[in-house]
Amino acid sequence: MIIVLRPDATEEQVNHIIEKIKSLGLAVHVSKGKERTIIGAIGDESVLEGQPLEILPGVEKVMPILKPYKLVSREFQKEDTIIDVGGVKIGGKEIQIIAGPCSIETKGLLFDAANSVKKAGARLLRGGAFKPRTSPYAFQGLGEEGLKYLWDARKETGMPVVTELMDPRDMDIVYQHTDVIQIGARNMQNFRLLTEVGKMDKPVLLKRGLSATIKEFLMSAEYVAAQGNHKIILCERGIRTFETAVRNTLDLSAVPVLKEETHLPVIVDPSHAVGRWDFVAPLSKAAIAVGADGLMIEVHADPENALCDGAQSLRPDKFVVLMKELKKIAEAVGRTM
Amino acid sequence: MIIVLRPDATEEQVNHIIEKIKSLGLAVHVSKGKERTIIGAIGDESVLEGQPLEILPGVEKVMPILKPYKLVSREFQKEDTIIDVGGVKIGGKEIQIIAGPCSIETKGLLFDAANSVKKAGARLLRGGAFKPRTSPYAFQGLGEEGLKYLWDARKETGMPVVTELMDPRDMDIVYQHTDVIQIGARNMQNFRLLTEVGKMDKPVLLKRGLSATIKEFLMSAEYVAAQGNHKIILCERGIRTFETAVRNTLDLSAVPVLKEETHLPVIVDPSHAVGRWDFVAPLSKAAIAVGADGLMIEVHADPENALCDGAQSLRPDKFVVLMKELKKIAEAVGRTM
Amino acid sequence: MIIVLRPDATEEQVNHIIEKIKSLGLAVHVSKGKERTIIGAIGDESVLEGQPLEILPGVEKVMPILKPYKLVSREFQKEDTIIDVGGVKIGGKEIQIIAGPCSIETKGLLFDAANSVKKAGARLLRGGAFKPRTSPYAFQGLGEEGLKYLWDARKETGMPVVTELMDPRDMDIVYQHTDVIQIGARNMQNFRLLTEVGKMDKPVLLKRGLSATIKEFLMSAEYVAAQGNHKIILCERGIRTFETAVRNTLDLSAVPVLKEETHLPVIVDPSHAVGRWDFVAPLSKAAIAVGADGLMIEVHADPENALCDGAQSLRPDKFVVLMKELKKIAEAVGRTM
Amino acid sequence: MIIVLRPDATEEQVNHIIEKIKSLGLAVHVSKGKERTIIGAIGDESVLEGQPLEILPGVEKVMPILKPYKLVSREFQKEDTIIDVGGVKIGGKEIQIIAGPCSIETKGLLFDAANSVKKAGARLLRGGAFKPRTSPYAFQGLGEEGLKYLWDARKETGMPVVTELMDPRDMDIVYQHTDVIQIGARNMQNFRLLTEVGKMDKPVLLKRGLSATIKEFLMSAEYVAAQGNHKIILCERGIRTFETAVRNTLDLSAVPVLKEETHLPVIVDPSHAVGRWDFVAPLSKAAIAVGADGLMIEVHADPENALCDGAQSLRPDKFVVLMKELKKIAEAVGRTM
Repeated sequence: MIIVLRPDATEEQVNHIIEKIKSLGLAVHVSKGKERTIIGAIGDESVLEGQPLEILPGVEKVMPILKPYKLVSREFQKEDTIIDVGGVKIGGKEIQIIAGPCSIETKGLLFDAANSVKKAGARLLRGGAFKPRTSPYAFQGLGEEGLKYLWDARKETGMPVVTELMDPRDMDIVYQHTDVIQIGARNMQNFRLLTEVGKMDKPVLLKRGLSATIKEFLMSAEYVAAQGNHKIILCERGIRTFETAVRNTLDLSAVPVLKEETHLPVIVDPSHAVGRWDFVAPLSKAAIAVGADGLMIEVHADPENALCDGAQSLRPDKFVVLMKELKKIAEAVGRTM
Repeated sequence: MIIVLRPDATEEQVNHIIEKIKSLGLAVHVSKGKERTIIGAIGDESVLEGQPLEILPGVEKVMPILKPYKLVSREFQKEDTIIDVGGVKIGGKEIQIIAGPCSIETKGLLFDAANSVKKAGARLLRGGAFKPRTSPYAFQGLGEEGLKYLWDARKETGMPVVTELMDPRDMDIVYQHTDVIQIGARNMQNFRLLTEVGKMDKPVLLKRGLSATIKEFLMSAEYVAAQGNHKIILCERGIRTFETAVRNTLDLSAVPVLKEETHLPVIVDPSHAVGRWDFVAPLSKAAIAVGADGLMIEVHADPENALCDGAQSLRPDKFVVLMKELKKIAEAVGRTM
Repeated sequence: MIIVLRPDATEEQVNHIIEKIKSLGLAVHVSKGKERTIIGAIGDESVLEGQPLEILPGVEKVMPILKPYKLVSREFQKEDTIIDVGGVKIGGKEIQIIAGPCSIETKGLLFDAANSVKKAGARLLRGGAFKPRTSPYAFQGLGEEGLKYLWDARKETGMPVVTELMDPRDMDIVYQHTDVIQIGARNMQNFRLLTEVGKMDKPVLLKRGLSATIKEFLMSAEYVAAQGNHKIILCERGIRTFETAVRNTLDLSAVPVLKEETHLPVIVDPSHAVGRWDFVAPLSKAAIAVGADGLMIEVHADPENALCDGAQSLRPDKFVVLMKELKKIAEAVGRTM
Repeated sequence: MIIVLRPDATEEQVNHIIEKIKSLGLAVHVSKGKERTIIGAIGDESVLEGQPLEILPGVEKVMPILKPYKLVSREFQKEDTIIDVGGVKIGGKEIQIIAGPCSIETKGLLFDAANSVKKAGARLLRGGAFKPRTSPYAFQGLGEEGLKYLWDARKETGMPVVTELMDPRDMDIVYQHTDVIQIGARNMQNFRLLTEVGKMDKPVLLKRGLSATIKEFLMSAEYVAAQGNHKIILCERGIRTFETAVRNTLDLSAVPVLKEETHLPVIVDPSHAVGRWDFVAPLSKAAIAVGADGLMIEVHADPENALCDGAQSLRPDKFVVLMKELKKIAEAVGRTM
């Protein structure tokens, strides 16, 4: 931690700051420049977490040196984490496609989607039983019934499944019916939910919040890891900006930033970011080109009559075409699919 | 709902769109202009909620006419809602100040803060027992013990209290120890939590999410109201923008916008928005000048040693001075305090 | 400047960094912590301006200690700058209101607006002759003819005038017809224009760009000051955020931040920020309450038929009412008007 | 234009609105729904440009039907515009790479960069002589001397060149020394400059402003086209968001949106967006994968000692590697390079 002093800081103030830092068990290093004196607090910076040093009299600003996340950092673990989901490896050389409907509506529609995405080459099946909807009057998902259909589809196709957990009270039932527990963008800072999934032994797919910085995203992953569960898949899904031409702005620069900062696998959800099926294809290609380890794509057998996010869902025939195109991009960047 | 057609829409496409709308029980009104044909869907627009009309062939764009929120809208109820919290009326001519520490740390510190804010003129006491913290390694609040101290402070001072609920599993214990249930900014779209507090008979203080539009903010209030609880206090607390000079950007234009759109009371939390105690005073004055019904201000007897948000907490003596200044502004805008 | 090294930085890399800094004439101070070594570059930090130290091998990050602006900083000049515009003092205890139409349309309309705002208590007259319009097909202003009307209105009313300069080629003609040269938000980083007005001896009213940080805003003021013209009035006029309920988000926290960082006067333009006349009043009151030195408000005798920004213009009768309300707020914060 | 009326609009108000629209030469179409009456204004919507219909009594909101840009729209011209720059075709099947130093520093450095990027396969040379710098104390470019070096490099290599115009007073000298006139992000709404380049017969490379919506971006292109110059190359270069991990957030979804809205070619500048050389490669690949017609990449023979943007400049050897990787992506999306 570096503490920059005001030019008019008094000796008394400087001494108070130094004592404060020493009282927290850190060593102090003072450096007097022409225009500013700076104090370095040397040692375990985490003891300063939440300490309002910036309000100590004489302080101009406080600059942390170390990153606030540990377990998920590239510094903590140099090699990439590869997560095994029922034999499907996420984070390695092979790019994985997770596909399926936004929400589970009927067993028939789910099975149709599952069979078609499997045939096209997707390795994991997605489907929402509990749906976070902006309006209380919109379809909220089938709940437990939906989870059962999903588990049935898993048996039918042999594909591991991903579904969202919204409420800690649903943990048991969701745990029993999924291979990967998804935490949605709106719950990225639902810290109690993060703590709960951190205690589980199944992989967590953590979506970036709409206005979460990459640092905050990694801190949420740290919440999960701090409880012991290190099987975390990060998912960029668009951030909120001033631009309204598409639903959210897909932040593809987040992928190389995350790859530098963390050892965890990083996937991209272009469907929720753009909100329009016809832009899912170009953004999917870009996501693989930029270095993502996988994609999460919404596929629905009958988007026009979908109960949720029909506008962004690909029809199975379009998905087949896209998968072929994605394979070419994967090869162009030296990966398999 | 207005559906604008592409210039090249075929008759067949137009007929398909018309049939789709009629099948949903709405009347259709077609208007052909020189450059575009538009279709009006007349009737209860809410049946179109989630219908992906924009992907029907021939459609250029879809524009809703009605607002998605009902119960909380000014159209539903013209007169202002005034919420009575243990005799303190929020939303009327009198401006109410909610004050207290960010988190409850010890019984002594809480009682000190409670007594001093009461003496200075605050009418409600705030204090957090469950704290949403960005870092898993930071102080997470005293939990149930904190709630008990808060309830004791209520008995001691006679002030009604406000505290945050983060997890539906804590509903009972929080309900028993508070007059107002706070939903924090990070949980503004925790729809399960909103549904739960919507079933309660105690007022809810709902904070705006960091990247929530005003429309989304009102939709979250609608979630609560849809369950039957209409006692909702809205709280603007700063939004996330590109500016980093302060923690968040306090959006004071949200106050007149909300006053126009909804009948619910609107308060402002300047402490969390700016994150610096020395800017709390000017922004508090501005919030009252712009038309807020109240303020939520963090006060701590010893900010330098606070376990949470010390940098933005006012010392009791500063709070006394601020209260005097706020009274003058309240009078200048024709209100009491 | 603080340079934080990567944990794996080699001795050779460290020596290269040290030599680089020394070669720029700065002293070097090395501090080895448990987890990171940091290098302090001591001396005139401005020689490092634009030096890409962050790409030197072994560097993790570079953190500047000093602020990049000098002449406009509070550190350079402690006392507030008060700018005299034809006897009207901006930046002192008295709050000044600049009012008038968005664009000059006819001599008659301008004179009507000028006389009415003067009568209501405004001290400066605004009016645009060169208008930056998003559409090439919209009214672009009367140009020189408009400037002449403005100068006539100045003679008629005795009020000093403010008008915008968009193009360095118009400098002479604008200079001859105005007391204050306005640089619009879209030109805040038109560095050639800033350099030109920096050579003039008339005050400059510099508007904050839609996505300019406060630091960038002050750097643009520094451009003007660096040429010798220190008579700069800063104007907050709303920033671009994700919120679309109003045109821009008025950032009132910018006022206390600017007051801390700079000695220059700070005014607020609520009209352009909200884009709606009925929200101008509450935001004007808030701007004075938060500490602004003045306001810039659009007033038009016939907003319904205005050629530019009619939606945000106050009718003269509404402006009279607002001025009375603003006086009360000014008094409540210990200022005159 | 659709005008939605308030539920309480009186007959008198409705008549006033209808008369207003008719007086502007448009036909009126009234449609009464259960909850709202809406008025359609049928005819040339552009006469309503700037008309503040939203303040007419009884109006709730005004919704435009048509797009505000014409000449640059895909509706105006269905087939892609292909721009020929000295034999290099931009906007066709072949992807073009524009490369070179951020600023021209010495003739030697420029020639080194020019020769190496040509050898690696770039077809156009970039180099700045007039540099927009945030700080008045930073290197501002060599000006005319730099332009001459650029023209010499053009003769030496045979590559057409691109350079930025910042000031209408430099038009002649820039025009004489470049093949493509660049308008920088900070000047995207410098409407006088846009008007000037609109009168020229050389292609314009227009960069998106940091906080410009795609609609505004296209309106700026319309400014150029409205003067007669239809040779416009659009360039996405990152937008300003809350994320600070990289300099700006590259908005790759803008590419398919632009491709749908306009017939103009679209290129991407990853260097300015990320501000870090090591992220230029992944984002370049993503830009081609998403459908861009070309890239603009900064290459410097000695980034460590560059006077401008050294941190984001690729060394020639890295550029050679990147070009090979980009060719593979181009082929994977069915294009040549």
